[in-house]
Amino acid sequence: MKLVRFGAPGTELPGLIDAEGRIRDLSGVLPDINGAALSPSSLARLRGLDPQTLPVVPAATRLGAPVAGIGKIVCIGLNYADHAREANLPIPQEPIMFMKAQTAICGPKDAIVLPPGSEKTDWELELVIAIGTTARRVAVGDALSHVAGYMAGLDMSERYWQLERGGQWTKGKSFDTFAPIGPWLATADELSSPGELAMQLAVNGERMQDSNTANMIFSPAQIISYVSGVMTLLPGDLIFTGTPAGVGMGMNPPRYLRAGDRVDAAITALGAQQHAVVAD
Amino acid sequence: MKLVRFGAPGTELPGLIDAEGRIRDLSGVLPDINGAALSPSSLARLRGLDPQTLPVVPAATRLGAPVAGIGKIVCIGLNYADHAREANLPIPQEPIMFMKAQTAICGPKDAIVLPPGSEKTDWELELVIAIGTTARRVAVGDALSHVAGYMAGLDMSERYWQLERGGQWTKGKSFDTFAPIGPWLATADELSSPGELAMQLAVNGERMQDSNTANMIFSPAQIISYVSGVMTLLPGDLIFTGTPAGVGMGMNPPRYLRAGDRVDAAITALGAQQHAVVAD
Repeated sequence: MKLVRFGAPGTELPGLIDAEGRIRDLSGVLPDINGAALSPSSLARLRGLDPQTLPVVPAATRLGAPVAGIGKIVCIGLNYADHAREANLPIPQEPIMFMKAQTAICGPKDAIVLPPGSEKTDWELELVIAIGTTARRVAVGDALSHVAGYMAGLDMSERYWQLERGGQWTKGKSFDTFAPIGPWLATADELSSPGELAMQLAVNGERMQDSNTANMIFSPAQIISYVSGVMTLLPGDLIFTGTPAGVGMGMNPPRYLRAGDRVDAAITALGAQQHAVVAD
Repeated sequence: MKLVRFGAPGTELPGLIDAEGRIRDLSGVLPDINGAALSPSSLARLRGLDPQTLPVVPAATRLGAPVAGIGKIVCIGLNYADHAREANLPIPQEPIMFMKAQTAICGPKDAIVLPPGSEKTDWELELVIAIGTTARRVAVGDALSHVAGYMAGLDMSERYWQLERGGQWTKGKSFDTFAPIGPWLATADELSSPGELAMQLAVNGERMQDSNTANMIFSPAQIISYVSGVMTLLPGDLIFTGTPAGVGMGMNPPRYLRAGDRVDAAITALGAQQHAVVAD
């Protein structure tokens, strides 16, 4: 299934994308796509529905973030060897973890708002894992059984605030609109492997990132196992799994986003995002 | 008011501490002490109640964390000059920020569980701010109007995981039970100033930390203003405001917690915590 949330910001309703690509309204079935909705029993119930029986939503309707009620956002840093190299940082021996504020979440076509005075706002396209069942110290072999589904996400990063304002990365990663996710959550059964998905990002039509989740240093299963060893993961928690090479900071000279730019990003099976970059 | 949550872990009910120090049951008045309960209108409603009309809860009842449904936990690092010195780190020019997983929250007398194999689990007593109204880029002069109340909190820190496992601090700060808060939330009107509160922490009866929130580098108002400039703060969000000198890492030789240790901590007007330290 492809689960979505549609409608105006803050009042989105749950839905799904049917086989013909139409949005179908799930608000008569469950209140929202949140941690409870991502449980195996809830997903099994949704799978049992005939989408043709659900109301069609007009195609032009805005899509919001596909998941609501997100508990925490854990991010993995430098998880692609080519990105570690372009950042002039060593290949990590174990996953680098940081957290991002949930208030940064926005929809897959919402504008990305530059922080006031920002000169170093950068893009990072990532595979995002949505947790479906509580995971605490789970083994690598069992880790993927805790996944409800996957999304495309941007781990937007203001490099000045990330790297030159006190040492910890959270500041530069947590501005409002700095975590667009979607357009849909593909439930885990939709993907043959989350580790073999092509991913591309373009700025103003120019290809910047062009990689594949197969290039990750630590796989989704390894990441979930590792993170669950230092914190309990709950249904509705998200993990951003790191970005490949091609970010603006890695260019010579570095290239950052300006108001008026356009960001297009897509991951195989997870859909495409389009963002206008705007001044605050 | 002193707001609490009482009962078994995971099924706590809302309550308050009355003038005689008894727990009174608020579960007939509101469902929980969460972001919605911390709004000015909700707090005004609770203030209008006569505590004598509320059921008395047995004194031996366990207290949980005083706030539920916590959106995010923002922590300020190195916010006391004496602690920055003992950590051999420079006095920050602006607040250092990181985040802690909400799943680390526990009650004021719950056991602190050492991570498997931990040899560097350390204590950090802190003043914790609970946000009551949405705060986005608020001025210092307006910042305290967004506070619902204050609590004592421990920003428990496994130094090996914080400092030697990948660079970002979140890992060492986010183990389950690493964020005990309480025993109560003192609403802001209870305190003449959140910046003049004595704070002490002892391990096995030996005083380790002995300071005052007046020694903060950045005041609660300055912190809220700063944090609200990089992320939107929502009702139910918490800010840990940093710890004074006297942590185990700062001693020569360093001294860390072992199973069987006891941690006692208190902040004026915010009550006392007692924790057994246990192996996993």
